[in-house]
Amino acid sequence: MSLLIVGTVAFDEIETPFDASGKILGGSATYASLSAANFVKDLGIVSVVGEDFPQAHLDLFAQRSINTEGIEVVKEGKTFFWRGRYRNDMNSRDTLETQLNVLADFDPLIPPALRKSRYLMLGNLTPAVQMKVLEQMEERPELVVLDTMNFWMDTALEELKAVLKKVDVLTINDEEARQLSGEYSLVKAAQAIAQMGPKYLVIKKGEHGALLFRSGEVFFAPALPLEEVFDPTGAGDTFAGGFIGHLAHSQDLSFENMKRAVIYGSALASFCVERFGVERIAKLDRNAIHQRVMDFIRLSQIDMQLA
Amino acid sequence: MSLLIVGTVAFDEIETPFDASGKILGGSATYASLSAANFVKDLGIVSVVGEDFPQAHLDLFAQRSINTEGIEVVKEGKTFFWRGRYRNDMNSRDTLETQLNVLADFDPLIPPALRKSRYLMLGNLTPAVQMKVLEQMEERPELVVLDTMNFWMDTALEELKAVLKKVDVLTINDEEARQLSGEYSLVKAAQAIAQMGPKYLVIKKGEHGALLFRSGEVFFAPALPLEEVFDPTGAGDTFAGGFIGHLAHSQDLSFENMKRAVIYGSALASFCVERFGVERIAKLDRNAIHQRVMDFIRLSQIDMQLA
Repeated sequence: MSLLIVGTVAFDEIETPFDASGKILGGSATYASLSAANFVKDLGIVSVVGEDFPQAHLDLFAQRSINTEGIEVVKEGKTFFWRGRYRNDMNSRDTLETQLNVLADFDPLIPPALRKSRYLMLGNLTPAVQMKVLEQMEERPELVVLDTMNFWMDTALEELKAVLKKVDVLTINDEEARQLSGEYSLVKAAQAIAQMGPKYLVIKKGEHGALLFRSGEVFFAPALPLEEVFDPTGAGDTFAGGFIGHLAHSQDLSFENMKRAVIYGSALASFCVERFGVERIAKLDRNAIHQRVMDFIRLSQIDMQLA
Repeated sequence: MSLLIVGTVAFDEIETPFDASGKILGGSATYASLSAANFVKDLGIVSVVGEDFPQAHLDLFAQRSINTEGIEVVKEGKTFFWRGRYRNDMNSRDTLETQLNVLADFDPLIPPALRKSRYLMLGNLTPAVQMKVLEQMEERPELVVLDTMNFWMDTALEELKAVLKKVDVLTINDEEARQLSGEYSLVKAAQAIAQMGPKYLVIKKGEHGALLFRSGEVFFAPALPLEEVFDPTGAGDTFAGGFIGHLAHSQDLSFENMKRAVIYGSALASFCVERFGVERIAKLDRNAIHQRVMDFIRLSQIDMQLA
């Protein structure tokens, strides 16, 4: 397998000022894998769901050539559920309900076929679970990308720091980079985080774009100014999936190609927010992605003749 | 005269978590003109100061070939004074003291030599004063850039809308664009603001870069991630001065050249925040600007080969 993605597979129920989703497919591994499936055709998920998880959702993964052997179905268990409501600015949201359900006891077991995956995405999960996954890999993957959030910095910082020592790329937002490093300047934050392990740091800034740092180098990717953000849920996971999907497909870990991966991730995220859930990213064709990537390139393209 | 800049010339007293400036030269016309003087050599200021304003400050403008005929010195008057303190994040600040002094009765009189200026920058001031300046111009300038702030939207919205009808470029920050338009999406905000008059909208987002909008077109300029922001005071005015300074110098109002102007403005603003007041921007040489602009270009440069 070229790419393994570990994270949550869940039910979400989302309200925005404009609409309500009802109970839909969500979760970090869901968004990341469906995003990555636009680039690679041999990828698998490791996650956990309950018996209430419909076959139709598993079929959706299969249709996108995503191996679901690693999705444990817990008998009599219920799938992780999140319900939230976005405020009028569509940037802040309130969690109305969280049912961990089967996620509370998730003890990931990677099927043998997935243990040699060359690229590994550790989606947002308890750092201890992310570590358990890493320990089961038969060979050290060529690239390990880890996504996390402020909640784990507040509640499991030591476990998070332990797993950070073993990853190549960390993807977090600007406030999380500041919290993790204790530095307000993102340049200093990137230097401090590099000392913790990850050679690369991607700072996701939503509508303000993304920054990619590698020792002494930095790339600023724009965000596409959108007329309407319909549902921002999953945009960060979709970004990470597009990022690692492009890298797994191109098998090129140069800084130049990492920059392209940031643009692909940004493009996929810009599709994600156009509809509820994975509706938009599960149906993309190559041409739509190409056009969107060109929009990103045009956005910051400049012909600068210096006197 | 190729460029006329109207705005405040003031005393500032700035405290940051790291240092205190003492009483130094500030004001929107000060920052904008010293920034623009890096590009054009025939420019003038219209502003007002008190008798307490030192000759050394007037000499500084003169050294940069800035015509100060239009700086009215009010006998027995005191110069506008602002005192403020930045918080730890260096992004938010508290005003500790504002003395309007001679600014309270500012009735701008443009010297004849400046009334035919081809480029006009209306720095942040009461909209009624900005209008009085426009009305004194003998010919409609080729380009009028207006900078304003949320305070005037709160207290003088009708006067602001009246002057907006007569300008070409509006420079504001993202929150101000949302407030002025009533739209959260910056794309929709830009469309609404275009209906108010300005053909071009520059949205300054500080550490998140800048956006340039013209009907159906948009350019996203990065901000240079800095190790340290020493004093953000005047960065917006410095941006505007670099923007219009480049345009007045190059005499090219194409969208491509407007994009370059945004990069020049951003580069000048990135120098501004490195020191207190105008210390950094008043001493720049061509090579330093060139290097900094190249840093901006490299920051978002990408070689994208699409499959």
